[in-house]
This record gives sequence, C-alpha cells and structure tokens, in this order.
Amino acid sequence: MKLVVVRHGESEYNESNLFSGWEDVALTEKGIREAKAAGRIIKKMDISFDVAYTSVLKRSIKSLQYILDEIGQEWLPIHKTWRLNERSYGALQRLNKAETAERCGKELVDGWRKSYAILPPLLDVSDPRHPCHDPRYRHVDPHLLPAGESLKTTLDRVLPCWTDRIAPHLINGENVLIVSHRNTLRALLKYLDHLSDEAIVHVDVPTGTPIIYEFDHELNILSKKELAKEPSAGE
Amino acid sequence: MKLVVVRHGESEYNESNLFSGWEDVALTEKGIREAKAAGRIIKKMDISFDVAYTSVLKRSIKSLQYILDEIGQEWLPIHKTWRLNERSYGALQRLNKAETAERCGKELVDGWRKSYAILPPLLDVSDPRHPCHDPRYRHVDPHLLPAGESLKTTLDRVLPCWTDRIAPHLINGENVLIVSHRNTLRALLKYLDHLSDEAIVHVDVPTGTPIIYEFDHELNILSKKELAKEPSAGE
Repeated sequence: MKLVVVRHGESEYNESNLFSGWEDVALTEKGIREAKAAGRIIKKMDISFDVAYTSVLKRSIKSLQYILDEIGQEWLPIHKTWRLNERSYGALQRLNKAETAERCGKELVDGWRKSYAILPPLLDVSDPRHPCHDPRYRHVDPHLLPAGESLKTTLDRVLPCWTDRIAPHLINGENVLIVSHRNTLRALLKYLDHLSDEAIVHVDVPTGTPIIYEFDHELNILSKKELAKEPSAGE
Repeated sequence: MKLVVVRHGESEYNESNLFSGWEDVALTEKGIREAKAAGRIIKKMDISFDVAYTSVLKRSIKSLQYILDEIGQEWLPIHKTWRLNERSYGALQRLNKAETAERCGKELVDGWRKSYAILPPLLDVSDPRHPCHDPRYRHVDPHLLPAGESLKTTLDRVLPCWTDRIAPHLINGENVLIVSHRNTLRALLKYLDHLSDEAIVHVDVPTGTPIIYEFDHELNILSKKELAKEPSAGE
C-alpha cells in the first residue's frame, strides 16, 4: 500500500515572506499551478487512493482539491484535521521574516526557524490570532490548541493523527494521500524515516514534489521516492 | 438549528439535455456561476455550519466547494456519500431526452421522468455504466448499487443517510449544509414536508436557490424558506 505526501503550493505569505503558521492564507496563482502540477505527477503513478487527509487551512485544502481534479478522484473521502495544520509560529505569525531578523537578530530568528526544539514567542490567549478564537477549532479541547510550536511539539500533535487515523488505513491495505504543510511534513518524515533531532534540521520538503512511500502490512517502509517536479512547474 | 439544502449548478448534461443520473459529468461555466451565487446568498444568512454532506458526483462536490469558498468555510468537515447521488436513470443515462421521447413516445418517457414510482429501463450488470464497475463504489455492498431508480426507490436509499447521519447533527444542535441533486432533494423534501406521492410530482428544486429549514431539538420544522435567487445569477 502506498502513501503519497504533498506540500501545498505557494501561499500569499510565502510570496511576501511572512510567517504563516496557523494563519489561513490563500494560494497564489503560482501555488495553484504548483498544486495542479503535483496532481499531474501523481496521475502518472496511476494510484487508486482510498482516502485523503489534509489540514483545516485553505492553502492545503485547495491544493488537495486541485490534485483530486487532476487525477479524476474528486469523489475521494477527505478528512480535514487541525492535527495536520502547519507548525504554529505563535506571536511571529503575520510578521515579515527579514524584518524580524533585523529587529531580533538573525541568530535568534534562525533558532526559531531552524532548530528542532526551540519554541517561538507564544501567542497570548487574548491575542485575536490565538486559535481559541476561531470557530473551526470549537470542537477541539482548548488545552490542545497551541500558542506556538517547535518542530518537536508539532510532531507531538501530528503523531496521534498518524497512529490512530492514517496508519490503520495503510495496515488495512489502503492507499492514502496527505496534503499538508512544510513543517508538518518535516515532522512526519522525521518520524517515518527515523531521523535524529540533528538530521531533520537539514531536511526540507519542496512544493510540487510528491513523496511516495510503499509499506508492507506491518508498516515497514519498502521504498521511498521523491517524484520529480515537472520542468516548468510553478516557474 | 438550521439545515440548508442546495441543488448543484448546471451540468454539461443539463446543458445538452441528456439523462445524467449517476454519470459523473462536470459543471458548465453557468453551473459554476450558479454555485458561487448560491454561496453568496447563503453568506448573507451568516450561518456557521458544523458539517456538510454531498454526493460522490463532481457536479455536487464542486458546487459545495464553490459555496464553501464564498462563505469562507473551506475548513468545514465534508462527507461525500453515494446515498446523496442523483436518482439513477438506469439505461436512459447518456441518452438525449428529446430523442428518447421521439423514439419511445412522450407518454412513456414522461412516466419515467415525472411519476413517483415508475422505474426507468434498468442497466444490465455487464453494462459499463453500471456502478459496480466504478472504483468509487468498491466499499459499497454491490446489492445496494442501483441499476435504475424511481423517485420512490431514490428516497428509500437516501433515507438511511438522513436518519442515521444528518438528523443526529441537527438533534445535537448543529447546522448542516447539503449540496445534492434535483431528484435526491425532491425525495428528501417529500419526506421532510410530508408530501403525498401525488403532490411531489409537481414540486421542483431549482438550481441556485438554497432552501433553509429551521428545526427544534425534536426535529420538528419551525420554518422553511426558499432564499431568493440573485437577479442575474446564472443568466
């Protein structure tokens, strides 16, 4: 059984170099082209999926929809879960990355951005950016909603979705598609590929490049492959 | 709690006057405009939905997506189920309505199209149009897959989705959005509005005109209203 993971296409905040995290920003035109290109690449693999998972953020949801349109599987059951949201960048969200590095110093910002375990400045509960104010999280225990996450704490909240929801599909012989975010997928890859805290720091997940895993029935990885980007995709 | 039901926008088969049924045809440009217009009408009602249901046919799935984009609730959990598919038109599917009336006689075709209980000519299991050949139905008991349906048998297969999946949301105080098909919604309205077999024959569900029900906790209807179409929608 196969697992295909895809990072969403370019978002408005990627384009303007802002910290996005749990901010619900739209895809750019380039991001839409990247999502469709990812769909065409997946189509060539001729996989009949059983289920798809994505976050509750529209840059991932729309990317998934464009992919399903391309592969002609619009009817696929899809599950949207906050556990596949991007890493929360806490109080950095909406700030410009370059300006923040100037103001706070490159070293500090690099620590927030690139380390495995360093938390960003946290959102106060009174801050309107805190997820407890967003109706899409009203069915989630407020104590689980992050005010800011490291890659490590991101993995902690992704993992129950993997173990309890996604892995059982694969164990049952089903093919799964995940469309999610850069750091969410880095956290998942760290877990699946048994990477050390140091090694994951150097691993990235580019847009428009689906990764395909093949598992056996005991969830051992039989193969892992990055599907090559289309030459002109998203340029 | 509120239930909003919407018929999908115009499809390619609506436009070319073919029997569609379970055929998975795309929306036309006009159909996309109708879906977006329905979304703008719903947005004015300012309803925070908890869940949406649709069929496994893309003209409904895409209409739902356009509506969710318009109301800014892309993150809403959605369930796609074959039980909300259009009435199966059996062996009539893909045929032209006018040509079929010429060949078989208007009276016979009117019986298939307008009666409550008359079945259309059935699809043979060997016919590639039979749903047992379509991978999207591989998890459905093949004995449940229709070879052709009357409005009556359509209601029979819609009802378990209503009683077991949708109604519990409303009883629990949640707001539900359904995007489905003309005859599926006619069947559901017959049930909800306690219409006789004779009365339903004269009831239609136009595109782009959401219907909103309000229920009490015992699922009694408190009010029902058709939301007026935008003056220029879909023209």
